Amino acid sequence: MTILVNGEPGAAVEAGDRGLQFGDGVFETVRMRAGRPVLWKRHWSRLCRGLELLGIPTPSERACLEELSRVSTDVPSMAKLIVTRGPGPRGYAVPAHPLPTRIVMGGAPLDIPDAPAILRVGVCSTRAARSPVPGCKHLNRLENVLARREWSGDWDEGLMLDAAGRVRCATQSNVFVLEQGMLLTPALNAHGVPGTRRGWLLDHAAAFGLTVREASLTLPRVRRADAVFLTSARLGLRRAALPGQDPASGCSAPGSEPLDCIREIGEHMNALD
Amino acid sequence: MTILVNGEPGAAVEAGDRGLQFGDGVFETVRMRAGRPVLWKRHWSRLCRGLELLGIPTPSERACLEELSRVSTDVPSMAKLIVTRGPGPRGYAVPAHPLPTRIVMGGAPLDIPDAPAILRVGVCSTRAARSPVPGCKHLNRLENVLARREWSGDWDEGLMLDAAGRVRCATQSNVFVLEQGMLLTPALNAHGVPGTRRGWLLDHAAAFGLTVREASLTLPRVRRADAVFLTSARLGLRRAALPGQDPASGCSAPGSEPLDCIREIGEHMNALD
Repeated sequence: MTILVNGEPGAAVEAGDRGLQFGDGVFETVRMRAGRPVLWKRHWSRLCRGLELLGIPTPSERACLEELSRVSTDVPSMAKLIVTRGPGPRGYAVPAHPLPTRIVMGGAPLDIPDAPAILRVGVCSTRAARSPVPGCKHLNRLENVLARREWSGDWDEGLMLDAAGRVRCATQSNVFVLEQGMLLTPALNAHGVPGTRRGWLLDHAAAFGLTVREASLTLPRVRRADAVFLTSARLGLRRAALPGQDPASGCSAPGSEPLDCIREIGEHMNALD
Repeated sequence: MTILVNGEPGAAVEAGDRGLQFGDGVFETVRMRAGRPVLWKRHWSRLCRGLELLGIPTPSERACLEELSRVSTDVPSMAKLIVTRGPGPRGYAVPAHPLPTRIVMGGAPLDIPDAPAILRVGVCSTRAARSPVPGCKHLNRLENVLARREWSGDWDEGLMLDAAGRVRCATQSNVFVLEQGMLLTPALNAHGVPGTRRGWLLDHAAAFGLTVREASLTLPRVRRADAVFLTSARLGLRRAALPGQDPASGCSAPGSEPLDCIREIGEHMNALD
């Protein structure tokens, strides 16, 4: 794995960096194709919004793109861009003139060929709490680490519920369900992180003749749904099922119209650059 | 400031360290006296409990103490001990055999001589969320960073409320109020971090003839209280007041019995080693 810190090859960061001290920073995990991050505008826009919410200066977009390109390989891969508030004196108080740290990590091949056609999804007991900075993909990710630790051997993902028991997201992806021919996804006003693929789907599904909207999804409602889907930069748009959920139930029979439509959308999404 | 990483002088940590990537670790901020951390048993016990909850191996206590001593100065000072899950491959999944990173930072003099006799406390709008690992002093500290950013120029601390509007803690200390001769403090089952001084006070106040117990504290109740106090390793036990809160009201007249008692407890606490 190649790592650049502020553009310099090398894998070391100051121990006093606020990213390490407090998780005071943001990140993006991007799918790289031909040296370019896919759906970059959405990644960049979320990164900038997160930095603005935290009051961290935005780095040069050109530098980020150039460094992502530098760490990318010939094969499709995943890369990660981190921006922290940089080093600071002791204590929570932010420096008046922060010097952000930019970390670019690349070269992890897209490791999903072994995944089954329908991803197996469990339910985590770690709850998704309200984010202190909604919509910001910040570095405080213990919730995800703890939820990820709960995966059983045969899980490909784990659903996460909020304190009220509503499904909000999965450990590292967003959740959609198909119900009466309509695609539904939890609102993420305060919980989870609205993904780039989720945003793209909300904006473009109508053009494929599919209605998508935000809804309150209890676990029983997800279980009763005709089909479950997960989205992320790594997965794209993938079919999923909970244990015991019959993948051939409802409208999920081969040739059923909404499923064909969603398959087409997924293929289109994965071909984007 | 002297920094040791795994016992070695130097201030660099791998960019791939999970402390930086996810805030996957714990910390303690300790008051140093004559090369020893004050109330060490309480700090060490909280650190170990946090590591256990996260499934991170516990470092050698002897190494931690030796390194804290090495970074300490002749004058009373604050030091910080961080233990992360160490480096890992990409993604939330924890390594099967983590090699924790130990960071010891020292030498910050105890900087409270300029503080006023009664600390001025504001109210932050950043809410204290339920912790994914209650009682664990983990590295996901954005909430505190955001609350700290809200301090006005004349604040010495800021109260933090939970989602239901109950006072839970302050940005970097625990909260107590004096009400009808009794000391009350918010329960911290899921919010905030139960401090070492808070724990000591709960265990020892009775010996000084003072009743202390956990209670649900709304902001109006805190405002109506006879006196407000803050505790932390840095502050010890300190009197505080909200804007407009009359420091001479209620039982707070000089010579009043509970206040004298609390002053005595504070002096005793600060003389501990």
